[in-house]
Amino acid sequence: MKVVCIGSGNVATHLAYALKAKGADLIQIWSRDITNAIELAKTTDSTAISDLKEIDPLADLYVIAVKDDAISTVSESLKDVNGLVVHTSGATAIDALSALKNHGVLYPLQTFSKAKPIDFANVPLCIEASNTASLEILKEVAIKLSSPVYEVNSEKRKILHLAAVFACNFVNHLYTLSDKIVEHFELDFEMLKPLIMETALKVQTELPINVQTGPAVRNDEQTMIKHQELLSSMPELKEIYQTLSKSIKKTHL
Amino acid sequence: MKVVCIGSGNVATHLAYALKAKGADLIQIWSRDITNAIELAKTTDSTAISDLKEIDPLADLYVIAVKDDAISTVSESLKDVNGLVVHTSGATAIDALSALKNHGVLYPLQTFSKAKPIDFANVPLCIEASNTASLEILKEVAIKLSSPVYEVNSEKRKILHLAAVFACNFVNHLYTLSDKIVEHFELDFEMLKPLIMETALKVQTELPINVQTGPAVRNDEQTMIKHQELLSSMPELKEIYQTLSKSIKKTHL
Repeated sequence: MKVVCIGSGNVATHLAYALKAKGADLIQIWSRDITNAIELAKTTDSTAISDLKEIDPLADLYVIAVKDDAISTVSESLKDVNGLVVHTSGATAIDALSALKNHGVLYPLQTFSKAKPIDFANVPLCIEASNTASLEILKEVAIKLSSPVYEVNSEKRKILHLAAVFACNFVNHLYTLSDKIVEHFELDFEMLKPLIMETALKVQTELPINVQTGPAVRNDEQTMIKHQELLSSMPELKEIYQTLSKSIKKTHL
Repeated sequence: MKVVCIGSGNVATHLAYALKAKGADLIQIWSRDITNAIELAKTTDSTAISDLKEIDPLADLYVIAVKDDAISTVSESLKDVNGLVVHTSGATAIDALSALKNHGVLYPLQTFSKAKPIDFANVPLCIEASNTASLEILKEVAIKLSSPVYEVNSEKRKILHLAAVFACNFVNHLYTLSDKIVEHFELDFEMLKPLIMETALKVQTELPINVQTGPAVRNDEQTMIKHQELLSSMPELKEIYQTLSKSIKKTHL
């Protein structure tokens, strides 16, 4: 399978590595910034380009992994290709590519950082396509990558993207805030790491609503008052403390 | 080592199991509710009691693992023992036990659910004691359990407890809310599990502030507006979305 990778960010990088590892022929890597394209092309035995006009029209699969607001610009230059063009955005409908013959979406429901390798067996792939043949190609890609695969339409993909903001982006920010608290009082974030792991592990087998712990779910007002006193010099954290405690209490009424 | 376990909740249960497994002699389990005491005593080869006056005065270690506001009542009945009496509360100062000869704190910085077994090698134990001999006993207990051990005074323990509310209790509530979102739109929470694991795994090696992703840190206003529209029928989640997004933007200015 001849693949062109359009983008060189976190998603593009990890997808390119994974496809390459599974035997795909990564013929081109495009990036607006040629330095980035060269870097990724080097490690995936590919060719770097930074001009959209240079994209090879004879690839089987074009993976667009650029910022959401750049998808339409990029797709303009793919109007004449016969291969399957997919974007990888959770928040963008399939219609963004409707001017193209064969198009679809390959949305990896995972968080990627360049520094950390990822096993695609742990990356649910949400797929959608403009026709049956294209859908089959995406299923094949998922099977090659050993990824769990889900057919998800654009409406539902938006919801998953939103749920991921709560389950990942907001969660990571709470890790940041807990780090800020321990740092502020000269304690070590290291001590919190087993707790963070266990909290995530627990909901792999239990529903989170059934394993809620802490002062808010116990309605332990005295502890909550003391916590807010400790946060008196951090008003922003105090607001978050109040908002989330209120929501926990309401959920577990 | 003869141990009396006072309490039969999540912390008491897991500590009792772990101590028993490492060869401690669990002579008594006390619970206000004898049924609970019997249940835990059965699996730890111990004797169930529900009258505080029945507590054996000749144990080496008394572990108080009851609700914070019951610690002082329970400790009243331990005034004449020579053994070491510890409580397990993050939010309670060591002074709560100051009327006792040998006293201390053994605070496990972890989340416990009865349903899920836990390896104490992943449970940081925060210890504090009224004298050196008592501190040595707590260090021995930690070594027996293979737990990482930290000497933490009451002031700092309070802070850790607060940080744990952010890193565990609030995080679990965000999992609950993401489940609520997917359920509301007839999607499966199962799909979010690899993302939840990866988010927790990432901060085992990276600082959370360095791996923040999502629309708020990118200042992607368009996506944030769309997300809030999707939450229009869930005003409480919308408020949390706004509060946390604001905090992410401020943190990453």
